[in-house]
Amino acid sequence: MIIFIRVKEEITKVAKADLQSLHRIFTVPEAPNSTLGRIEREISHNLAGFLNEHLVARAISLSDIERDFCDPEIPENPTFVSEHTSFLLEKLVAQSVHTAAPSFIGHMTSALPYFMLPLSKILIALNQNLVKIETSKAFTPLERQVLGMMHGLIYRRDNAFYEKYMHSESDSLGAFCSGGTVANITALWVARNNLFKRDKDFPGISRVGMFKAMQHYGYQGLAILVSRRGHYSLSKAADILGLGRDELIAVEVDENHKVKADEMRRQAQQLEKQNIKVLAIVGVAGTTETGNVDPLDELADLAKELGCHFHVDAAWGGATLFSETHKSLLNGIERADSVTIDAHKQMYVPMGAGMVLFKTPEMATEIEHHAEYVLRKGSKDLGSHTLEGSRPGMAMLVYSALKILGRQGYQLLIDRSLQQARYFAGLIDNASQFELISRPELCILTYRFVPTEVQNILKHADTELTTEINQYLDDLTRFIQKRQREAGKSFVSRTRINVKKYQGQIVTVFRVVLANPLTTQEILNDVLCEQAKLAKQSEISLPQLKRIVADYTAV
Amino acid sequence: MIIFIRVKEEITKVAKADLQSLHRIFTVPEAPNSTLGRIEREISHNLAGFLNEHLVARAISLSDIERDFCDPEIPENPTFVSEHTSFLLEKLVAQSVHTAAPSFIGHMTSALPYFMLPLSKILIALNQNLVKIETSKAFTPLERQVLGMMHGLIYRRDNAFYEKYMHSESDSLGAFCSGGTVANITALWVARNNLFKRDKDFPGISRVGMFKAMQHYGYQGLAILVSRRGHYSLSKAADILGLGRDELIAVEVDENHKVKADEMRRQAQQLEKQNIKVLAIVGVAGTTETGNVDPLDELADLAKELGCHFHVDAAWGGATLFSETHKSLLNGIERADSVTIDAHKQMYVPMGAGMVLFKTPEMATEIEHHAEYVLRKGSKDLGSHTLEGSRPGMAMLVYSALKILGRQGYQLLIDRSLQQARYFAGLIDNASQFELISRPELCILTYRFVPTEVQNILKHADTELTTEINQYLDDLTRFIQKRQREAGKSFVSRTRINVKKYQGQIVTVFRVVLANPLTTQEILNDVLCEQAKLAKQSEISLPQLKRIVADYTAV
Repeated sequence: MIIFIRVKEEITKVAKADLQSLHRIFTVPEAPNSTLGRIEREISHNLAGFLNEHLVARAISLSDIERDFCDPEIPENPTFVSEHTSFLLEKLVAQSVHTAAPSFIGHMTSALPYFMLPLSKILIALNQNLVKIETSKAFTPLERQVLGMMHGLIYRRDNAFYEKYMHSESDSLGAFCSGGTVANITALWVARNNLFKRDKDFPGISRVGMFKAMQHYGYQGLAILVSRRGHYSLSKAADILGLGRDELIAVEVDENHKVKADEMRRQAQQLEKQNIKVLAIVGVAGTTETGNVDPLDELADLAKELGCHFHVDAAWGGATLFSETHKSLLNGIERADSVTIDAHKQMYVPMGAGMVLFKTPEMATEIEHHAEYVLRKGSKDLGSHTLEGSRPGMAMLVYSALKILGRQGYQLLIDRSLQQARYFAGLIDNASQFELISRPELCILTYRFVPTEVQNILKHADTELTTEINQYLDDLTRFIQKRQREAGKSFVSRTRINVKKYQGQIVTVFRVVLANPLTTQEILNDVLCEQAKLAKQSEISLPQLKRIVADYTAV
Repeated sequence: MIIFIRVKEEITKVAKADLQSLHRIFTVPEAPNSTLGRIEREISHNLAGFLNEHLVARAISLSDIERDFCDPEIPENPTFVSEHTSFLLEKLVAQSVHTAAPSFIGHMTSALPYFMLPLSKILIALNQNLVKIETSKAFTPLERQVLGMMHGLIYRRDNAFYEKYMHSESDSLGAFCSGGTVANITALWVARNNLFKRDKDFPGISRVGMFKAMQHYGYQGLAILVSRRGHYSLSKAADILGLGRDELIAVEVDENHKVKADEMRRQAQQLEKQNIKVLAIVGVAGTTETGNVDPLDELADLAKELGCHFHVDAAWGGATLFSETHKSLLNGIERADSVTIDAHKQMYVPMGAGMVLFKTPEMATEIEHHAEYVLRKGSKDLGSHTLEGSRPGMAMLVYSALKILGRQGYQLLIDRSLQQARYFAGLIDNASQFELISRPELCILTYRFVPTEVQNILKHADTELTTEINQYLDDLTRFIQKRQREAGKSFVSRTRINVKKYQGQIVTVFRVVLANPLTTQEILNDVLCEQAKLAKQSEISLPQLKRIVADYTAV
């Protein structure tokens, strides 16, 4: 017993010492000359320099990287912050993707305005939780204002409308969330619950679920229609919400990658004949692969005709509304019942800022929920109308960008992006060895490398030969894209899309997104030059294509 | 026409100038002596000082705050960063909640370790997108490692297991997400899709949805059982996933707020008799209101007996596993099919870091999805097994905390929190005017202010009198809690729970969460003193209670 007490005293003593050092971790800031302190200063003074210096461009295979991140054991003992920071610099930061690099034009993540960094720091320091006012206070009215501003950008209601609804506890102009996927799911959840809402004969799908709702209404299925270019999150939404992925109907697109509204109508009618209710039609405002905008006005007409929910997925293209020059591309969006916009895309906010906006503020009532300790009825807690629970105050960054850049600032950014895309398309048009596959409507385009002689043959080739050539070209595109990525100087992405002029054959293409304001015309020239050079290194597909050319010419 | 050209030239000239200033926004950092630069430095050097100085404790009504955030117009013109920053400081930061304050013990958000701030800055500067390797690279293996570590914390599988599964593209040890709500929804989505998975007679619920699944299996309903103390996100999950909120069955708890496993069994059997299939039972490891842990081992037995999914919502309590002293409180968690843990709670990571872990790495296959441009089959893109799409690399902060604090560091934090809670419970026990309502099992407890004489009467009061007294006490508790919050010196939250010794009557209580390592015993003493003082200011409930005491004594 005495021994036991002694040991316990020892442990207590040790624990006390450690508690002190723990206390320090929460109270004593990193010293300015500590490793982490230095990095922080470096980032503040010269972010581009930091990224260029620390992000190694060299290609390291994923399995090599995995070796540094394979220990499943949680370390028993603490590590010095400086030691850990050095490890992060060497193994994590060095092997990260330079998403801000002006020559990385393959994804939707761009450089950030400088003020985002210090503002983010304030955000993290405040560590608010937007689920309820108790842990967010002024952040809640701020988020409601941002939702009001974005609602206004789309729906342009008058001041009386926003005065009535912006800060109303029982209504909701929209919901902030981590990204477009949650926004799309939320929109379709709202649509589903409004379709099967409570009435005198039915307690509402929210309470009794899909099975009883379908039985009550006597439907055989519940479908969503969208362009075959629709984002994969819609199929996830169909799964999660209990419709099933088969009930997300992919509708054909025209040669400009816009959904065929007539074809959608035809399919909707066919569904209704089979007693499958159309829950919603979705218009895409900025397809992920080609950046095209569906004919939103026509779709709005169709939704009205069908009496269904009209959702617009403008995760990418929504910000086009800031531009007086180009906003007409999205005509009809103001007729959507709900709209998804991602601020971490063309609004230049760091990752994690999605939004869904609702045309009618009462719509979200059907997904309302309460609890005893938060989200009490009558409270203005934002959490009562969101899919997520606890979440950070990202709205502050959107708010700040709207204020600091202003509509005109965003207009300049959007206009410049579209101009760059048109410039690059022109460059490809004029380069004899490249083929533009989709012309940019917003700032996304697709193309591929096709030797001039092969292009000439393709003009007259029959389906069989076209298929053969396209297979080798697919290999070549993949080869070039991978090599370019590995070389680390620049990055374009790739996807597979069906191309009208090749009888709808699906081909592999380079995809570029020209949203980084630091991307220059020189960089775009260099990207093409590099690709042309890389193509020559292909040891399989290029020789095969040459053989085809030789055979064809010989005939 | 000439005029048109001239105007266009003018616009182009203006646009060029503005493009230059826009370019600066992306390339020139905030000057160290700018307002934002100064704030950043202030936060780096003395976060507590910054928060104490700028967060105004005064109570301002929400409607007053709303007045500053009511303009629905997106400003047309840019604003100077410094001007905007001053506005933020005065109107937003000043009116935010000081979540890190050691005397704010009413919510689950605590002070953060200092290193989180500079690390967050690196995170934002890198702006990775974890949906796919193309935009995250080393962050993907890192996140997989963190999931492996957390999986190991719960399931303690051997190294061979983690070697096989941690970086496997077709399996998933878990999923990172924005928070516990998405984690719970993901877990139950996985459970639902595994229950109704594809076999030779059925294409799987993922493809054909709830209605066809229920028809195929001939069930009349699909239910989830959980303690009546379960988190409200579970009811949201039941709604979203198409079960319906009524199918989330709230099971009675015992006097320690732990679910009665026998009662759950009885209800499950009754459901199955009605041909309602039990999809899952959920055990709570740390109820939001009282911090109690359900009898997980018994629930695991029950799940086995019922042949259903066993999910544990350990969003709050999961971190207890770091403590050798207290981890046995969660015995049985290692038998759960899935577990939710929030790193932004007791792991001291900033808001936005939730996780769900899967016992069997194959389980997530049923929610797998692919697309042409990302998440290609065979890729290691994390996005193929998550509810969310694009999302930030918060895993880096969890990883860093695990490394820097080590298991022992977390153990100290957890042990200290539980010790503080026991200390506070003792304080309440010894204070004659307070009544402890729920004794802390983890670091959460509930109590209320009850004048000594009223306590004496309650000991012998019949139901009617008890009800009357409790109503006045409820008013008094609400009164004190609101006044204390408004005074701004300290903060406890409140909730309503049923109390065994009052025949299960639901009463309003103060709720405290003692997870902030900076909360001292002095602060806890002060909180009680302040509450006792505030009680005396009550002009309605306290006089009424005195009247009851007088009447009772007179009899």
